[in-house]
Amino acid sequence: MIRACLSALALVLPLAAHAQGGVGSALPGTAAEARGTGDLGVVIERATGSVLVVDQSDRAALCRVEGLGDLSHASLTFSPDERFAYVFGRDGGLSKVDILTCTLENRVVQAGNAIGGAISDDGKLVAVSNYEPGGVKVFDADTLEQVADIPMGSKTVGLADAPGSRFVVATWDTGEVWVLDHSADPADPQVTQVKGVGANPYDALMTSDGRTYIVGLFGEKGLTTIDLWADPPRPRRILPDYGKNQPDLPVYKMPHLQGWTLAGSTYALPAVGLHQVLWADAASGAETGRTDVAGQPVFVTARPDGRELWVNFATPDNGTVQVIDGMTREVKQTLQPGKGILHMEFTPRGREVWLSARDDDKVVILDTRTYEKLGEIEARAPSGIFFTTRAHRTGL
Amino acid sequence: MIRACLSALALVLPLAAHAQGGVGSALPGTAAEARGTGDLGVVIERATGSVLVVDQSDRAALCRVEGLGDLSHASLTFSPDERFAYVFGRDGGLSKVDILTCTLENRVVQAGNAIGGAISDDGKLVAVSNYEPGGVKVFDADTLEQVADIPMGSKTVGLADAPGSRFVVATWDTGEVWVLDHSADPADPQVTQVKGVGANPYDALMTSDGRTYIVGLFGEKGLTTIDLWADPPRPRRILPDYGKNQPDLPVYKMPHLQGWTLAGSTYALPAVGLHQVLWADAASGAETGRTDVAGQPVFVTARPDGRELWVNFATPDNGTVQVIDGMTREVKQTLQPGKGILHMEFTPRGREVWLSARDDDKVVILDTRTYEKLGEIEARAPSGIFFTTRAHRTGL
Repeated sequence: MIRACLSALALVLPLAAHAQGGVGSALPGTAAEARGTGDLGVVIERATGSVLVVDQSDRAALCRVEGLGDLSHASLTFSPDERFAYVFGRDGGLSKVDILTCTLENRVVQAGNAIGGAISDDGKLVAVSNYEPGGVKVFDADTLEQVADIPMGSKTVGLADAPGSRFVVATWDTGEVWVLDHSADPADPQVTQVKGVGANPYDALMTSDGRTYIVGLFGEKGLTTIDLWADPPRPRRILPDYGKNQPDLPVYKMPHLQGWTLAGSTYALPAVGLHQVLWADAASGAETGRTDVAGQPVFVTARPDGRELWVNFATPDNGTVQVIDGMTREVKQTLQPGKGILHMEFTPRGREVWLSARDDDKVVILDTRTYEKLGEIEARAPSGIFFTTRAHRTGL
Repeated sequence: MIRACLSALALVLPLAAHAQGGVGSALPGTAAEARGTGDLGVVIERATGSVLVVDQSDRAALCRVEGLGDLSHASLTFSPDERFAYVFGRDGGLSKVDILTCTLENRVVQAGNAIGGAISDDGKLVAVSNYEPGGVKVFDADTLEQVADIPMGSKTVGLADAPGSRFVVATWDTGEVWVLDHSADPADPQVTQVKGVGANPYDALMTSDGRTYIVGLFGEKGLTTIDLWADPPRPRRILPDYGKNQPDLPVYKMPHLQGWTLAGSTYALPAVGLHQVLWADAASGAETGRTDVAGQPVFVTARPDGRELWVNFATPDNGTVQVIDGMTREVKQTLQPGKGILHMEFTPRGREVWLSARDDDKVVILDTRTYEKLGEIEARAPSGIFFTTRAHRTGL
């Protein structure tokens, strides 16, 4: 009878369900009980097509989910209940992972080559931005069935959600921004096209209020912002000198615009190809200063209180992380937390920062005030770290 | 054997555990399974000493927990994993509710008369602000054992968390602000006293970055702000005309400062005793305009994108809610969602607003763009509505 009961229990207990193998595998110490999901996170293991579910409170891995395809350039979003992660792989795979039961609940290969996605503000639609065949496809968040297919005659980049069941995306080939409004009919979005955004948008960023969409340009200098509250929305050029300075300048990595930070009314952003962080006034778009740093910056990420900015770097300086004081704009700390630091994620209220050290096969956890190491988690070539609090944010 | 198995299951299944009665009671439709907690919430039932656990996704109540004492002026905070709610009752009761299993896990009566609390940024300490005997007491978030007792020779108000295991509170009798830093020793906080804050602080507000603490004064006009990044922090008076205008002016309810909103660089705040919302520049503290509204405003709450502000009112106008356009500062919508609207809570990305209609014994759910009613939930004289996303915010 005990064995029978245990079998029955195994059917309902979340993290134990796949402890015997299968797609998900529980790591030692996995708790076999109901639990809150507000302190969970997911780490992309880029080389092995797997993700690691982690627990912020215990600073530990809970389990690994495999079989997600090519995650060499992957990102993810969370469902509003903070239970499901939608993982966008480079190979066009869209995977839905249940982080409570540690299972790959569903997976569709929806394109040949994809570059990220977003979830609508009601949690019902997941959109994916595609290089091949281009355009955007939209899926039912519950079933992953296709709801809408919006070809745009172009590769798309910088897909982000906006309030009111909207998605915003930029088109690489045609230099446009498309606003897709699914609020009236999920399957047939109302489309607003903003033309003349600039040559070859390569990435974009939505401010956290969902109002301003900022497009980075590969084909020319400067950036373009669009005020989505304006009717109609129009492109506005800012930071006209921002971008690659000389044609022969080696740029080891074009910085993601998600590496930007808006602290108060000031942007801090990685200079392209230079060992500098740039400061710009958010209202005017004018540059207001520069801070010299240890390498080519990739992410300039504000601690949640905005008082410090943490910077990581492109190769060959990707073992260094620097901390800039947001008031003095001076480097106050230089750290060597591990080899190949690809990403930094703060706990929601900023007490800790988690860093992926790809070439050390671990995630390193630091106290954001003392800079002491609080813990480490083994991970296979980790890249992006995503905490569930992202479920509640606009513009990701 | 089946019965024995079911008994075993009942021990581990979260929401079914108390379906047979006891402290928690499951409502019809309760799901007996593990679930994410990112879309849960808690509604205070002020007259019955109970709380209702609600599900944002299903727009439904999950269960009720009773036995929390006097909740006539109650608030709560959440643990970082979004599983536990710490409920601060008027009678000095501190209750820890497990919203997954729907149980009152622990309860201590820690004072004779209390006025709110906060949780530290590492989730380890819960602080309570007391009228009687005054001061602040700090408890272990896990066990509710007392960790520290900080008498201040005064009633205390406006307790809020700040980054780095700190709490900030104002003293009614002595006109001070105390900063308690528990980072080195939880049991023996380092205390910074800011004197000369003004006569009789009655409430306070922390900005969401944990930098600026704003104190409302009952004994004189104006408000006092303190920049917690300054060393030492000093009081600065703003809005010198803010407050009760004539001694004989009837003020039906002193507005909570949590009713303030910071939208961009502008504060929107309820005028005391007047049928107006005031606008002020956050940097200078100067008033920049007024909007006439339908009654004495209580809460002026920004939709998460900041484009609209929703306003509720003191009696006799507490059946009305108005929506102000954040760009034009004009009232764009007047609603009558129910009787005795005490509180408004937005879903994290602003798609819906939930309103407590105390005198209708229900929670009313509106679409924030169409203003259509999306649902209702029966509740006993509901007051505060708290969604779990608050676990991730600073300064609550």
